[in-house]
Amino acid sequence: MIDQNTNLLIVSAHSADFVWRGAGTIAKYIKNGANVHLVVLSFGARGESNALWKEEGQTLENVKAIRRSEVEAAAEAIGVKNLEIWDFEDYHMQITEERMMQMVKKIREVKPHIILTHGPHDAFNPDHEAVSKYVFDASVLSTSNGVKIEGYPTAKQAKIFGFEPHQSEISNFTPEVIVDITDTYELKEKAMNCFAAQTHLIEYYGWKAKLRGNHARRCSGNNEYKYAEAFTRRLPLVGGELV
Amino acid sequence: MIDQNTNLLIVSAHSADFVWRGAGTIAKYIKNGANVHLVVLSFGARGESNALWKEEGQTLENVKAIRRSEVEAAAEAIGVKNLEIWDFEDYHMQITEERMMQMVKKIREVKPHIILTHGPHDAFNPDHEAVSKYVFDASVLSTSNGVKIEGYPTAKQAKIFGFEPHQSEISNFTPEVIVDITDTYELKEKAMNCFAAQTHLIEYYGWKAKLRGNHARRCSGNNEYKYAEAFTRRLPLVGGELV
Amino acid sequence: MIDQNTNLLIVSAHSADFVWRGAGTIAKYIKNGANVHLVVLSFGARGESNALWKEEGQTLENVKAIRRSEVEAAAEAIGVKNLEIWDFEDYHMQITEERMMQMVKKIREVKPHIILTHGPHDAFNPDHEAVSKYVFDASVLSTSNGVKIEGYPTAKQAKIFGFEPHQSEISNFTPEVIVDITDTYELKEKAMNCFAAQTHLIEYYGWKAKLRGNHARRCSGNNEYKYAEAFTRRLPLVGGELV
Amino acid sequence: MIDQNTNLLIVSAHSADFVWRGAGTIAKYIKNGANVHLVVLSFGARGESNALWKEEGQTLENVKAIRRSEVEAAAEAIGVKNLEIWDFEDYHMQITEERMMQMVKKIREVKPHIILTHGPHDAFNPDHEAVSKYVFDASVLSTSNGVKIEGYPTAKQAKIFGFEPHQSEISNFTPEVIVDITDTYELKEKAMNCFAAQTHLIEYYGWKAKLRGNHARRCSGNNEYKYAEAFTRRLPLVGGELV
Amino acid sequence: MIDQNTNLLIVSAHSADFVWRGAGTIAKYIKNGANVHLVVLSFGARGESNALWKEEGQTLENVKAIRRSEVEAAAEAIGVKNLEIWDFEDYHMQITEERMMQMVKKIREVKPHIILTHGPHDAFNPDHEAVSKYVFDASVLSTSNGVKIEGYPTAKQAKIFGFEPHQSEISNFTPEVIVDITDTYELKEKAMNCFAAQTHLIEYYGWKAKLRGNHARRCSGNNEYKYAEAFTRRLPLVGGELV
Amino acid sequence: MIDQNTNLLIVSAHSADFVWRGAGTIAKYIKNGANVHLVVLSFGARGESNALWKEEGQTLENVKAIRRSEVEAAAEAIGVKNLEIWDFEDYHMQITEERMMQMVKKIREVKPHIILTHGPHDAFNPDHEAVSKYVFDASVLSTSNGVKIEGYPTAKQAKIFGFEPHQSEISNFTPEVIVDITDTYELKEKAMNCFAAQTHLIEYYGWKAKLRGNHARRCSGNNEYKYAEAFTRRLPLVGGELV
Repeated sequence: MIDQNTNLLIVSAHSADFVWRGAGTIAKYIKNGANVHLVVLSFGARGESNALWKEEGQTLENVKAIRRSEVEAAAEAIGVKNLEIWDFEDYHMQITEERMMQMVKKIREVKPHIILTHGPHDAFNPDHEAVSKYVFDASVLSTSNGVKIEGYPTAKQAKIFGFEPHQSEISNFTPEVIVDITDTYELKEKAMNCFAAQTHLIEYYGWKAKLRGNHARRCSGNNEYKYAEAFTRRLPLVGGELV
Repeated sequence: MIDQNTNLLIVSAHSADFVWRGAGTIAKYIKNGANVHLVVLSFGARGESNALWKEEGQTLENVKAIRRSEVEAAAEAIGVKNLEIWDFEDYHMQITEERMMQMVKKIREVKPHIILTHGPHDAFNPDHEAVSKYVFDASVLSTSNGVKIEGYPTAKQAKIFGFEPHQSEISNFTPEVIVDITDTYELKEKAMNCFAAQTHLIEYYGWKAKLRGNHARRCSGNNEYKYAEAFTRRLPLVGGELV
Repeated sequence: MIDQNTNLLIVSAHSADFVWRGAGTIAKYIKNGANVHLVVLSFGARGESNALWKEEGQTLENVKAIRRSEVEAAAEAIGVKNLEIWDFEDYHMQITEERMMQMVKKIREVKPHIILTHGPHDAFNPDHEAVSKYVFDASVLSTSNGVKIEGYPTAKQAKIFGFEPHQSEISNFTPEVIVDITDTYELKEKAMNCFAAQTHLIEYYGWKAKLRGNHARRCSGNNEYKYAEAFTRRLPLVGGELV
Repeated sequence: MIDQNTNLLIVSAHSADFVWRGAGTIAKYIKNGANVHLVVLSFGARGESNALWKEEGQTLENVKAIRRSEVEAAAEAIGVKNLEIWDFEDYHMQITEERMMQMVKKIREVKPHIILTHGPHDAFNPDHEAVSKYVFDASVLSTSNGVKIEGYPTAKQAKIFGFEPHQSEISNFTPEVIVDITDTYELKEKAMNCFAAQTHLIEYYGWKAKLRGNHARRCSGNNEYKYAEAFTRRLPLVGGELV
Repeated sequence: MIDQNTNLLIVSAHSADFVWRGAGTIAKYIKNGANVHLVVLSFGARGESNALWKEEGQTLENVKAIRRSEVEAAAEAIGVKNLEIWDFEDYHMQITEERMMQMVKKIREVKPHIILTHGPHDAFNPDHEAVSKYVFDASVLSTSNGVKIEGYPTAKQAKIFGFEPHQSEISNFTPEVIVDITDTYELKEKAMNCFAAQTHLIEYYGWKAKLRGNHARRCSGNNEYKYAEAFTRRLPLVGGELV
Repeated sequence: MIDQNTNLLIVSAHSADFVWRGAGTIAKYIKNGANVHLVVLSFGARGESNALWKEEGQTLENVKAIRRSEVEAAAEAIGVKNLEIWDFEDYHMQITEERMMQMVKKIREVKPHIILTHGPHDAFNPDHEAVSKYVFDASVLSTSNGVKIEGYPTAKQAKIFGFEPHQSEISNFTPEVIVDITDTYELKEKAMNCFAAQTHLIEYYGWKAKLRGNHARRCSGNNEYKYAEAFTRRLPLVGGELV
């Protein structure tokens, strides 16, 4: 059950990742009152802004400014109130020990029940793979009281879910959890439309949502599912029943 | 949530499999009011009755009679009301088309939301692997209205979970769902004790329950878990949130 | 290069499989003059005719008759001249030694350079997995001159490609060959439309073709690819260059 | 088809890797007029010059000088005109961001249709695994116009192939592409003979070429294949037919 | 340690399999006094006698007679005294329950410490895969005293090793045990030469033995290994030390 | 055979790892006269000292002092004479080139026939995975005479075994070697009891030892095995027989 006692932390490597891959699910958590914190690690200026760089005389500052306005609009579209942009350089994103501690601190501050970030494999995106390991390792360190950070006591181990990569089948992606987003798909569309220059991705993730809806129906026998998003789960599901 | 609207079908290849591997979980479903149906496919007379056959002059009838009384006592110990024993021969269990239809019929009759049976790999037990495929295929056929059985309309696709095999690590077993059985472990112990001749297995599955309890605590941060059972899930989890 | 010296044999477990999964590619071979032989093993009357069975008073004969007219229309739409329907019963399809020899004979008759059939894994479809093994084993036997069939001398080992399953990601599907079908997609649409009762599949495989087109562009850098179909390859590619 | 419009870039971690694992294929590309660029990252002075270091009083300078003359002779033997030796230290080769940009630049300069380098696994050779990731990541960066290098506009995504490791079977190597080198095997032998101190490797790769020739015959039915080399392919094959 | 208390059972699907893949190892056991029993399941008349069937007017009886003389000669060459030929039909070999019991009986009679037979995967050889499962299942049944065979009490669980398949790398073969056969390679050559019509295989397995010798040296640092054979192990090694 | 000519090097990431996972086996080597060298890389002060840090006013110096006394006591309990503590910082342990050379030197000094350290996967422990690669790479470098260290000539390639991780089943652990520790289990218990604050781990590894004993009996048919430890093997077993 999602309610105001649910803490969700999302870590997105580049500014639009959380939109294409998780906006419907995030919107659902917000709609149901969860405390949602979104960390965007980079603007994706080097690796995910091809369209912007096609303009004559484009500058890094300008690319970042545009990406910032897009990500803020998209976050707003799905109702995210707590957005942080850490402005790491991308392609390749470097994970230093200092950045590791910054993430441990964030996790201890948010105390998430659930972390949503990149899964372990992504054929064309070395940053996504680096972030997957970064966030998982930080979640492990966050639970250890030998890793001292003044004012930030340890957190409980969070459940960790991974976004579906862009090209699932060549990234060994197997959907472990499929979340119905029929109720929030409209919001996801709104968020996707904040990235005006990437029409082809808006179409692409529209098809994906419908394909995943089809899979959701077939696996569950529930015909009310229309749109869905798929994720990996990093650790076994632990609980009181067979779900 | 488990309640009186939850239908659970268990398919156990031999008479004691459901006890060692799932009695705590099954007891939990019964305790919470679920409709539980247990199908035991064989007495395990050939492959899983070593202790009984050590007695001089032992006969097949006698082995079956003893195994019947044990399985009935164990089922009663955890509160199972609907027990069927299909008395297939074991080692090797043969899955004919007729038996396939018998299982399809059972599934359509019970209309299970959840089926609990053997997982796909079991290093030392070819019967378990055959039953895993048998039940999955029957669940698929049960949803197809071209597979006609007079009086038995199609069922919805059930969720399917697999028991942990005896020697998990040499059977490629990865726990996907770990169910806390702290509340019903006492009942599981009672059920295990119905198999008097197999003291070493009672001990063995006691350790397993505690090991799985340790894993449940580590993966969830919830320290109230003492005993647990682990399962595989055959299809992706489909639902309304990240669980 | 595809030309009149190319022999292609397609083996489809049920009557529509070759359409959803390969019609664009098959149409391309026909358009380029290849000798194309299509074997449809069953009408899919039990497992893949849900819509038809919903009609009151439906009979097996009628279902088969409708399926026959659909498959003939679809084959014609893409230009297939050599169509055989073997009318095996489906769900579960039984592969006897006699049927094995029937396939060996067919392979020796057609002498295919390429066989297109089902790949090894298909999460919800045991028939597809059985046919995958059936055709591969037959292709091996077809090359052995100790497997005597009067009048049918041995064939060379064919290259074997597998269709993409319906739910790729839960079937461990990895695309090994992606074929551009931009030129023949219109024909594929025509063939799909012969299966009037299955509108949802027509939509579904439309999205797939576009997703695969996206992947084709990303993997190759060639932006002219709009629609594509993906396949597995059973054996290593052997040839004169790095392709 | 290989011709003067084909650009091939080879990246070899140590000075002899391209010879043992790819000289026959490279020679074929050269023979057919392709533009072939060979980058040798290191002399392999630390990890792959055992024989040379056995001499009393051996020095690093001398080892490098000998290795240089060997690699130049071997490159000449198969007709390579564009050879660069980057003289990284080996065992362990360090991949810095600066070196990453150096490779991106090279790729943008050569605009390869095909890159031939080390595959992802090599049981005994950590350098080979590092180079595999190095070159793949650089190929991804080379296509992104946010990764600016003055004077070097983006390249198209190259096809990437991986050398067979020294001990294939303990390195999870599965041949995906097997290239017939019957016509150029003589040149490969000549190139191998430039490494005088490593007679046992010359023998070893002779047997390999014949084993791969046997596999090529069996998989294709083409009995003219005598010698072959095997490779992995990093991305799905995309094209106009089933190859 | 191999001595007269070591019982070794070899199960070869076709008449020459044990020669190409294990003759050096078997010879070593015989040389050291072990009790060696060889069961050849079929003459391989359909699937592995291509050369013989090329002769005009060839008959099944004649093929079997030639194969019998070859296998007897090869067995003699390496010193096998206990040879049984069960004359199953090959391609495809059918494993009935009766044949299962025949194998259980054999195992209980020989009481092998070690069984050497086919491994689980063999890309081009469905018989080898069937025999692998056949022998493993029989070994499990042989230990169960509920599987009654008058006069044949249960055996202990044997260690089970699998032959290297013909094309290792496309059969997911990973060598788990590499046996030095330098001392008995000459006998293996003699045995191989009993199959006069298959010169290309004699060469092929000569290269393999040398490649495996190379691997044995590299993995162990022992330079006295010249020839070797590789095998899979079915169950974990259990013993008193780290070997 | 273990005797005074056997050199065993153990590398333990944190101070207690070698105890929980290998003390029974190490004790056995010592008991049989082997030369045993133990390197403990860190005190595990950050990641594996949760209980100690719960005390008010705890300091890093004090934690290290306690861990030192525990590890020395545990080493003494099983008879280790050569103990070195390298005092790396843990969580995350950094492997620099300098540390790589330190390990190469150690290996060349000890000349181990066997190295026992962490296996490649450990779901919750990034340090263990880093150490696994660290030690393996060092073992490879140690054999190369181009990697010069004054006074330390090359070593032979050691056999490398990996500890069982804490949560085997979610770390893809497959036991490849199971060592009977029935004779030394008492010493292992003594060593475990040196870690007073971690009672739950003492219990946990007691159950594990019994579970592994059960597996040892089932896989071997030898009923004298009571307690065991399981390991992975990094390279194929090479030797003179089928073990």
